[in-house]
Amino acid sequence: MKKVIIVGHKNPDTDSIISAIAAQELFSNLGFEAQARRAGEVNNETKFILKKLDIVMPDLVTALQEDETVMLVDHNEESQVFDQLDYNKVSHIIDHHKLAVKTEVPIFCRVESIGSTSSLIAKMFFERGIELSQKTAQLLMSGILSDTLNLTSPTTTVEDKELLEKLNEIAELNIDVFVTEMFEAKSSLDGISVEDIIRIDYKSFEMGEYNVGVGTWETTMPESVSTKKAEIIQALIREKEAVKLDYVFFMVVDILKQNCQLYLVGEKEQELAVKVFAGKINDDEMFLPGVVSRKKQIVPQLTEMLSK
Amino acid sequence: MKKVIIVGHKNPDTDSIISAIAAQELFSNLGFEAQARRAGEVNNETKFILKKLDIVMPDLVTALQEDETVMLVDHNEESQVFDQLDYNKVSHIIDHHKLAVKTEVPIFCRVESIGSTSSLIAKMFFERGIELSQKTAQLLMSGILSDTLNLTSPTTTVEDKELLEKLNEIAELNIDVFVTEMFEAKSSLDGISVEDIIRIDYKSFEMGEYNVGVGTWETTMPESVSTKKAEIIQALIREKEAVKLDYVFFMVVDILKQNCQLYLVGEKEQELAVKVFAGKINDDEMFLPGVVSRKKQIVPQLTEMLSK
Repeated sequence: MKKVIIVGHKNPDTDSIISAIAAQELFSNLGFEAQARRAGEVNNETKFILKKLDIVMPDLVTALQEDETVMLVDHNEESQVFDQLDYNKVSHIIDHHKLAVKTEVPIFCRVESIGSTSSLIAKMFFERGIELSQKTAQLLMSGILSDTLNLTSPTTTVEDKELLEKLNEIAELNIDVFVTEMFEAKSSLDGISVEDIIRIDYKSFEMGEYNVGVGTWETTMPESVSTKKAEIIQALIREKEAVKLDYVFFMVVDILKQNCQLYLVGEKEQELAVKVFAGKINDDEMFLPGVVSRKKQIVPQLTEMLSK
Repeated sequence: MKKVIIVGHKNPDTDSIISAIAAQELFSNLGFEAQARRAGEVNNETKFILKKLDIVMPDLVTALQEDETVMLVDHNEESQVFDQLDYNKVSHIIDHHKLAVKTEVPIFCRVESIGSTSSLIAKMFFERGIELSQKTAQLLMSGILSDTLNLTSPTTTVEDKELLEKLNEIAELNIDVFVTEMFEAKSSLDGISVEDIIRIDYKSFEMGEYNVGVGTWETTMPESVSTKKAEIIQALIREKEAVKLDYVFFMVVDILKQNCQLYLVGEKEQELAVKVFAGKINDDEMFLPGVVSRKKQIVPQLTEMLSK
């Protein structure tokens, strides 16, 4: 039987953990010896969901065995894969992000412009007519609700809504209650240091000739983070120097009011942000109303400017 | 309605024309205003199939309208797209080749390690439960039979065989008779110049730092081509100089006896072929028993050596 290790990106978010667990079930059904793993510490939201649904946390990914290949879920760029991975061992990609893939042989690649990788995996279950347990349906719904911020993010598609409804015929979840609890868990700073705040949902990108880091913190309580702004900015500056970034940005996203405070750690970031987002800077931050999505509202805009 | 132009690679083979036509039907069913196009002159096999099935040849692709995006079928690398195309206009990829894709936003990408792009499109029809007409089923079968050399190529998977059987429940084709006629048409040199022989199924690749061209001619009558070897090699040398290639190779594939004569136009090609394929060179060619697939048996091996 083909052995495949399924893993999301470094600094895993909820969707990247959930899509790995669900893909394990899907590909076991398709005849693979599939094992979900995680590429780092998980956040409080993910912990809440797995505990609530009584699902075992995947183990941390380790070095591969000779006969194992890797399925990347919720990411595809080499800069986001776990540190020990030789990219040539990637046999499958299931994702909903922009593509930066180069392989020496044909692999399985399923990428769509859809709200979450969990949506795509739900779609693949339905396409293949594989029965979903109530728990798996609830799990996939959690992934969709998390990544689309309860269907409010601009990344949300009609398909996400339809899939969520179809899943809830099996899951029978009270979505309002569940989302409120989930977002409270996401916003909780229990056991979270300033370093954790910038690391937990952080991604790096190659934009033109530049290396750019963009962290984000989605919360229902932005004030709990903004009181730590000075410390966060110092930590970002240390990170920027340590990994030799050209730019680093940090988004504090208010998921209820649907806006973002973009933290700007230095003059370079301030100049670029003014050019790209045309907002006003007050006290090292730029307020961006309506902006909640790094993928759709921050990264393409920065990439376009830095690729000129 | 979303407008999408569907097009295969330059120097189109049968699979790249057929998968464009079938994808037009599939995506029209999915709510797109979809139009199949071709990126060059088609070969005698493709002409035979479309005539036999009474299907209209797609028009040559032209400059895009502002509101149109492009679906690449049967290819994904920038070096193989049609000349006028801005790669940023690509919204969809359906393919079965190695990946070299970089996008600024998430797009639809469906790639699998399967025998033909026609197989993948057949699979997508079945997944979505969209009814296939007898003609479309016959068309998709032709694409599978062509690209897998009647299921004999090493690129063939169990899934190709299953899809072919499932399609033939609708198509009701006498496969043996059809394949014989198809391969005769493929092998015919009617109206084919030496320049056509090298151009008709030719692809270029970036391998490490090198630009490499690999042409192939699949035939049931290799002697009809080998009598023109000297002229073919001269034409290859001219092509190599004209487009500044580092290496150029040409495969004459005997699809009945399942072997290949690899034409080697100069010392550089000879040295590389000896290193990679370890065969003996006689009179500017290397005999490679069992080798029929550029994708699986030539390109990865050359790429590996040239990337060192």
